[in-house]
Amino acid sequence: MIHFKAIGKVMGALLMLLALLMLPGVAFALYFESGDEKALLYAALASLSTGGILFFSFSKQDQNIRKREGYMIVSLSWLLMSIFGMLPFIFSGTITNFSDALFETVSGLTTTGASILNDIEATPKGVLFWRSMTQWIGGLGIIVLTVAIFPLLGIGGIELFVAESPGPTSDKLHPRIRETAKRLWFVYMGLTFFAGLLYYLGGMTFYDAVNHALTTLATGGFSTKNASMAYYTSPFIQYTAILFMFLAGTNFTVIYFGLTGKFTRVWKSDEFRAYATVIILLALLLTIPVYYYSGQELEKSFRDTLFQIISLITTTGYVTADYTGYHVGLTLLFFMMLFIGGSAGSTAGGIKFVRHLTFFKNSWLEFKRIVHPRAVVPLKINGDRVTGKIITHIMNFLLIYLMIFTFGSIVLALMGYDMLTSFGAVATCLGNVGPAIGKVGPMDNFAFFDPFTKVVLSFLMLLGRLELFTILVLFTPFFWRAN
Amino acid sequence: MIHFKAIGKVMGALLMLLALLMLPGVAFALYFESGDEKALLYAALASLSTGGILFFSFSKQDQNIRKREGYMIVSLSWLLMSIFGMLPFIFSGTITNFSDALFETVSGLTTTGASILNDIEATPKGVLFWRSMTQWIGGLGIIVLTVAIFPLLGIGGIELFVAESPGPTSDKLHPRIRETAKRLWFVYMGLTFFAGLLYYLGGMTFYDAVNHALTTLATGGFSTKNASMAYYTSPFIQYTAILFMFLAGTNFTVIYFGLTGKFTRVWKSDEFRAYATVIILLALLLTIPVYYYSGQELEKSFRDTLFQIISLITTTGYVTADYTGYHVGLTLLFFMMLFIGGSAGSTAGGIKFVRHLTFFKNSWLEFKRIVHPRAVVPLKINGDRVTGKIITHIMNFLLIYLMIFTFGSIVLALMGYDMLTSFGAVATCLGNVGPAIGKVGPMDNFAFFDPFTKVVLSFLMLLGRLELFTILVLFTPFFWRAN
Repeated sequence: MIHFKAIGKVMGALLMLLALLMLPGVAFALYFESGDEKALLYAALASLSTGGILFFSFSKQDQNIRKREGYMIVSLSWLLMSIFGMLPFIFSGTITNFSDALFETVSGLTTTGASILNDIEATPKGVLFWRSMTQWIGGLGIIVLTVAIFPLLGIGGIELFVAESPGPTSDKLHPRIRETAKRLWFVYMGLTFFAGLLYYLGGMTFYDAVNHALTTLATGGFSTKNASMAYYTSPFIQYTAILFMFLAGTNFTVIYFGLTGKFTRVWKSDEFRAYATVIILLALLLTIPVYYYSGQELEKSFRDTLFQIISLITTTGYVTADYTGYHVGLTLLFFMMLFIGGSAGSTAGGIKFVRHLTFFKNSWLEFKRIVHPRAVVPLKINGDRVTGKIITHIMNFLLIYLMIFTFGSIVLALMGYDMLTSFGAVATCLGNVGPAIGKVGPMDNFAFFDPFTKVVLSFLMLLGRLELFTILVLFTPFFWRAN
Repeated sequence: MIHFKAIGKVMGALLMLLALLMLPGVAFALYFESGDEKALLYAALASLSTGGILFFSFSKQDQNIRKREGYMIVSLSWLLMSIFGMLPFIFSGTITNFSDALFETVSGLTTTGASILNDIEATPKGVLFWRSMTQWIGGLGIIVLTVAIFPLLGIGGIELFVAESPGPTSDKLHPRIRETAKRLWFVYMGLTFFAGLLYYLGGMTFYDAVNHALTTLATGGFSTKNASMAYYTSPFIQYTAILFMFLAGTNFTVIYFGLTGKFTRVWKSDEFRAYATVIILLALLLTIPVYYYSGQELEKSFRDTLFQIISLITTTGYVTADYTGYHVGLTLLFFMMLFIGGSAGSTAGGIKFVRHLTFFKNSWLEFKRIVHPRAVVPLKINGDRVTGKIITHIMNFLLIYLMIFTFGSIVLALMGYDMLTSFGAVATCLGNVGPAIGKVGPMDNFAFFDPFTKVVLSFLMLLGRLELFTILVLFTPFFWRAN
């Protein structure tokens, strides 16, 4: 049986934490006199009281958490946070219907960054801050998941590359998961602080700097400006965003190694090398056609190209240029970046480099196996051998990801949306990116979708963020039949 | 080292056979006085003499054929046949440039059925017959490959489900490969004869009946009419095409079991059950919206739906209705059928059911493995256990297939074609189908593409037809370094 009481206790604690994190928004609301402090306070109160009732209803003896409770806790966490996270939007009258509020909150908590707000700058400052905060909470949550929960549950085949990175079986960062999580949070919070500082020094207001720092490190991409990062024409600010998006999409364990001076460890990570190399090569390669088609000067062309590439690959979703405006071939290339994803162990969503790396390495070795059928041809990542079970697991993940993309696109097309919009919306939501192609290009938003489609897209964002299997397993008989 | 002399001898024999198969076209040219008999004769002569020189230059001692020679023979066979198969088109003046002639011939020999001819009915009758014949030759060739060559080479992970079908390790059809191939050719020729007979009885001319019989059983889809099968409004002819397309997409071993009365063996084949079930379910499901959107009567709606579904899934590519004309959701559904493919061991191209089946079964079992990490959860197809190696092999095939689709689409988009046309053209060529979406919908042809793109698409047709790995392995260092 499933220990629902244990689950209830965790949910209670979570909702109380959520209430606490709504309070900074109240301060901004009061400072800017934007009139939304009550909405935030009521939302915090609702979250706090519900959380308190859940938490204190269950005694400590009930904390019997095993694998199956783990799955339910992960899925329910994001679901409950989404429900209560909607309240500030609804109470303040910023968003007036369920599907829009759900979409915006899920987009925040999953660090996607797709928005239904037509005029972001008109949104009251307290609620707008809460919107950025949902992304930062999502990023915080994903660190707990990848460090502490996924390895336990064995999700998506990347668990080996995260907690014990850069080596799947050796070089443990720290044997105790709690300590690991703390160190990575420290990295997360430290980087958020420095990003905010640099944004502020670059000319952003204090409010905008804080908001953008929160959504940069979460690879979320919500902005306080309608034009997103294109509002800030300052190269300093844009390069700051580039740097911190890149760091937010890097395995935090690798960053920790970097901060502690272990640079050989950083470069020993196959995933980090692939991540850095692909971004640099793509930026150099695509600057030329962007320069040609945009007619801008070279530095600006390079900056635009690099910014858009990093924004899409790290699944952040900030925009400084319309990548669909150059040439159809470039549009398709940028669209394909929605299927890359950042590094495992970062706040980035999507498929992630380590999975691509496993697939590419294995494909290459398959040819070797064809030519030498009796030879043992092991696959190595970070110098360690990857078992056949993990390879199967990862390739299955990739195929299920593409299958969900396909089925999702069919649902949207059946709702009457044109094919490119359907492909784009589904790819960007499943990959937790933000902008896409078709009617959801970098200059558009998601307001025009019907309520049903918004709920479908919200579900896809959750699926992608929780590495598919966490949610999908709940829909299989194995889960409910297990002892 | 590679035994090129042995390869040369096989190529010689093949070209002489090709010359022989050009001769029936001469008879039609003379009968219809279409004036292209000389073109066919010269082409046959060129093929015969080249083949003769190759064949008789090498003594019998050189026939040292092993695995690596096998790969080269397979790839070179299709390449050489394509080169010499172009000659009738060029000599007759039907097609006047290299890329068009290559595209049309490769489209024939790979049983794709995509065409660059703007007016098929104006093509001289002898050459037109040769065009249909290329598809039948392609079908014949693919039977040899799947029965005799692929199991030897270990290609694409489906070898186990073909030669020894319906069970991967038991129930061998016949121990001797040569005998197996003969029996399946007998099935192929017999079905071609009966298809032709029924087409003729249904009202086609003798010429049209023969042509369509050849291209039906090859799942090729070349027609002698500009309107393809839509020209024949007779329900009898259309249902005949439906029946024989279905059979051509069935594993021929399964058909052989059916013909010899072993019906339990037929139904024991997991792939056949999946193949039949998916087609029937899709037809029933999609008839309703097609009926709604087309405004036709119910029987015609059902017939159109069933015809288009079978035509796409078996990778034939005949058309009786414009499936892009109903609703964007239906268009996408029909487009997705380009990624299904018929059964292994048939003349159908594409991914094929047994691979999808392996993926779906494995995905399902992955969830079981997540919940019960210590349990041994074997995957069974046709009652027999599939090894982890084969599962990896098949999933890798699926991912490489989708990767080639992606890269191919990017190439076309970079050439300036819109995204849907790029997706459509690449999917239909790689899957050896024929019609697609965008500017290459069911009512269009491929004439408008530039020469470079036509060569790229020809290469994709060959890649898809030869199960990717056969050709790709030639581009790896492992192949050339091996002893």
